[in-house]
Amino acid sequence: MRIKFHQSLDELKQRLLVMAGMAEQAIQRATEAYTTHELSTVELVLLAEPAINRLEREIDEIAVDLLAMEQPMAVDLRFILSVIRINSDLERVGDQAVNIARRVREMQDHPHVDLPVDIPRLASLAAAMVRKALQAFIEGNVEMAREVLTLDDQVDEMNSQAFNSLSALIREKPEATSQALSTLIISRNLERVGDHATNIAEDVIFWVSGNDVRHHASLEK
Amino acid sequence: MRIKFHQSLDELKQRLLVMAGMAEQAIQRATEAYTTHELSTVELVLLAEPAINRLEREIDEIAVDLLAMEQPMAVDLRFILSVIRINSDLERVGDQAVNIARRVREMQDHPHVDLPVDIPRLASLAAAMVRKALQAFIEGNVEMAREVLTLDDQVDEMNSQAFNSLSALIREKPEATSQALSTLIISRNLERVGDHATNIAEDVIFWVSGNDVRHHASLEK
Repeated sequence: MRIKFHQSLDELKQRLLVMAGMAEQAIQRATEAYTTHELSTVELVLLAEPAINRLEREIDEIAVDLLAMEQPMAVDLRFILSVIRINSDLERVGDQAVNIARRVREMQDHPHVDLPVDIPRLASLAAAMVRKALQAFIEGNVEMAREVLTLDDQVDEMNSQAFNSLSALIREKPEATSQALSTLIISRNLERVGDHATNIAEDVIFWVSGNDVRHHASLEK
Repeated sequence: MRIKFHQSLDELKQRLLVMAGMAEQAIQRATEAYTTHELSTVELVLLAEPAINRLEREIDEIAVDLLAMEQPMAVDLRFILSVIRINSDLERVGDQAVNIARRVREMQDHPHVDLPVDIPRLASLAAAMVRKALQAFIEGNVEMAREVLTLDDQVDEMNSQAFNSLSALIREKPEATSQALSTLIISRNLERVGDHATNIAEDVIFWVSGNDVRHHASLEK
């Protein structure tokens, strides 16, 4: 029974990793669509969403069944609760990718404008946060999880700079308003990806140490 | 033992209601600050945040302890898992109130502009969604939870109209850019409140019926 239980926990972890890979890929593709303006890449992101949602439900069902049938204690209980939370954050990362892809599609209706914001760099930082948070989860590595919290400050700073430079641009070139606003929203979508990675990192710390670190990080700022 | 367990479940529910009241009040105050431009109201929202965060942790601890010690089955297990999720959504509603309050404070640095967006109406709809979702939770009322999902379409629509009318305004009056962008962001913050209420409504349906409705609603659209 216990061996089977630990096999189930491993299976849960494996599926969560697949989920994380899909969420990360969705962000990468959405960013690629932003850079290349290729509608086929937008479509790829939209087509992948149902699969992400389906996997979220599957993982949730396995986790809830394990809680119901195995009634795990202490570290195993915290592990399963963390999976449930991380799963939900990964699905919302996928939602952000869909939001970005839809916004890129709308941008096609307006002429291209050079904008003073490095969306690929912001996206790659946000995706790296998700990847690092998941790696921290696999390894049960609290130090690595804490590094994610630090990266989030960088993402917030980049997003704040994007807001300032885009509002300055709009004032100078009102004809660029539409593209600038879309990029502003995309920048905020990426900031939210960073927030989800932060939530995941906090869950890793909760799982490993049993300490609830939420809000402590923000108090230290 | 069972009587004590059900007392603990009631206590959990009571605390979650307090949490919901605090989150809703934070949104109402942030909106009031937007309307009246009173910095003292901004401060009220910021000062209340640590209490919301603290209560989130307390509720989480009680829920996790109940799972660990009582090893509840079926409907009780789903109830406790729902509390954990709803708690997290309520805390994020509080975060949105803080975001709005901070944005209102920044708006003080720029001259007032009349904007074509009814933020109080959007806020009152979003707050009503949170209230209704919680009421559905208290009563275990699936029908009421489904009504929340319908209201979310209205919030999305209002937010989308806000985006369009604000971008039109910016093109006509570049000097209003800063205030218009801030209001755009506030409108999106309120949309996220609606999303959290939707999550809560879905959790109520999960708890009561054992069916996972997430993503089904969006398929029906």
